[in-house]
Amino acid sequence: MSRQLRVSAVSLGVEIGDVAANLAAVEHELRQRESGPHLIVLPELVTSGYVFDDETEARSLALRADDPRLTSLADALHTDAVAVVGFCETDGDRLFNSALVIGRDGVLGCYRKAHLWGAECDVFVPGDEAGAVFDTPVGRLGVAICYDSEFPELTRRLALAGAEVLALPVCWPLVARPAGEHPPETIQAMAAARTSRLATVIADRHGAERGVEWTGGTAVVSPDGWICATPDDDGTATAVLDLSGDKSLGVHNDLFADRRPELYGGIHV
Amino acid sequence: MSRQLRVSAVSLGVEIGDVAANLAAVEHELRQRESGPHLIVLPELVTSGYVFDDETEARSLALRADDPRLTSLADALHTDAVAVVGFCETDGDRLFNSALVIGRDGVLGCYRKAHLWGAECDVFVPGDEAGAVFDTPVGRLGVAICYDSEFPELTRRLALAGAEVLALPVCWPLVARPAGEHPPETIQAMAAARTSRLATVIADRHGAERGVEWTGGTAVVSPDGWICATPDDDGTATAVLDLSGDKSLGVHNDLFADRRPELYGGIHV
Repeated sequence: MSRQLRVSAVSLGVEIGDVAANLAAVEHELRQRESGPHLIVLPELVTSGYVFDDETEARSLALRADDPRLTSLADALHTDAVAVVGFCETDGDRLFNSALVIGRDGVLGCYRKAHLWGAECDVFVPGDEAGAVFDTPVGRLGVAICYDSEFPELTRRLALAGAEVLALPVCWPLVARPAGEHPPETIQAMAAARTSRLATVIADRHGAERGVEWTGGTAVVSPDGWICATPDDDGTATAVLDLSGDKSLGVHNDLFADRRPELYGGIHV
Repeated sequence: MSRQLRVSAVSLGVEIGDVAANLAAVEHELRQRESGPHLIVLPELVTSGYVFDDETEARSLALRADDPRLTSLADALHTDAVAVVGFCETDGDRLFNSALVIGRDGVLGCYRKAHLWGAECDVFVPGDEAGAVFDTPVGRLGVAICYDSEFPELTRRLALAGAEVLALPVCWPLVARPAGEHPPETIQAMAAARTSRLATVIADRHGAERGVEWTGGTAVVSPDGWICATPDDDGTATAVLDLSGDKSLGVHNDLFADRRPELYGGIHV
């Protein structure tokens, strides 16, 4: 039942404020991928940049989910390839921190970040779904954005909904950590992956933007929770994942069947 | 509002099958602690050993939670010290993989493991609570046992119930891992700690028992999810934790308030 899927997390160079240049860079990345099934994940807000001066600037960089400048990215994809692209979305009124899921035949879905981080609440409206799952040519795809993934309720929910792999666009600001340790967000992603045997494709930024230094956490996390790819010289982490859908642990245990949801709701103390 | 608490995780040497010797070793450990508030955590099934030949052997090593051989451990504790001791429990009929919470004045609670690992299901009945929280002289104490902690639903539940620190007796069998990485169970414990700012005191075994090699994951994990103590030459990991109860992340965010539980239940795909 196992099948293999090529996945790439692309830590794109982003010019804050230059939507046309960023879209061109995304298109260039998508075009250069070889043919065959391939999941390609770009960072959070990759079309606009992240560190907005204010809501007015964010609004000036926002795109509708059906904007031809975005949807035409489909033309850059091979058949059976799927891209997940973080973008600053407007519905004409509100702004969302969103990710568009694009296949060769067009838009497959749009997810709006449900857990906003820091000053994002001054700009964005939170989405009304905690992560989302889309059926795509590369399989059943989970999508979450950055801080979303620090809520294990969300990653577990997507896995239980049948997500075979999680696309995770992020902008992780660099924080202090003990020597030799992964970034804390990476540890949480590794744990969430192992908890549900849910491979995770993390596309982070690198370098800095308007004084905010990024962690550079771009990586592919295997279904067992280990980092199986980090960026090459071009900033892209690529791996071929084995996706079996099997949640068993030996003959006695199963990551899903061993759950006891009837005991998790109430707090009996 | 911050207060400090001394915690110790003791990786005790265990003689499988020799309850008297193991209880004497536990008592010795408890007696040698200095006075003052102190949480002392011993491994899972520390009174019996873990690798039973069969259910009959386990039954021969089981103790009632009110067995004087166990409850008299209270006499070895200083005022304001609390011990969490994994033991093979019987209620006269069924067997449980349990942890007794003991203070100077006697037993404060007993938790029965809810998520059984491997062949444990041939021996034990699972408990009917997913982790437990007890009010003790060292504060509001969460208790879970080994495989329990791999279910983020459980650790989150305990944190939301007000647990200030999690006592985690374990027997982690050694599994392969990439060079430089922590054991996978440690990564999950670090992530769970950071997710809810819940310090975790992990008492694991070391060495081997009947051919099963242990990971040796004894450690104290700080509220921020970092390993802040590993065993000294005597096998004990001791740290002084700052327990503030504060779940805020800067001015905009809060680990608990940012949850959106209304979105986690249903699977909308």
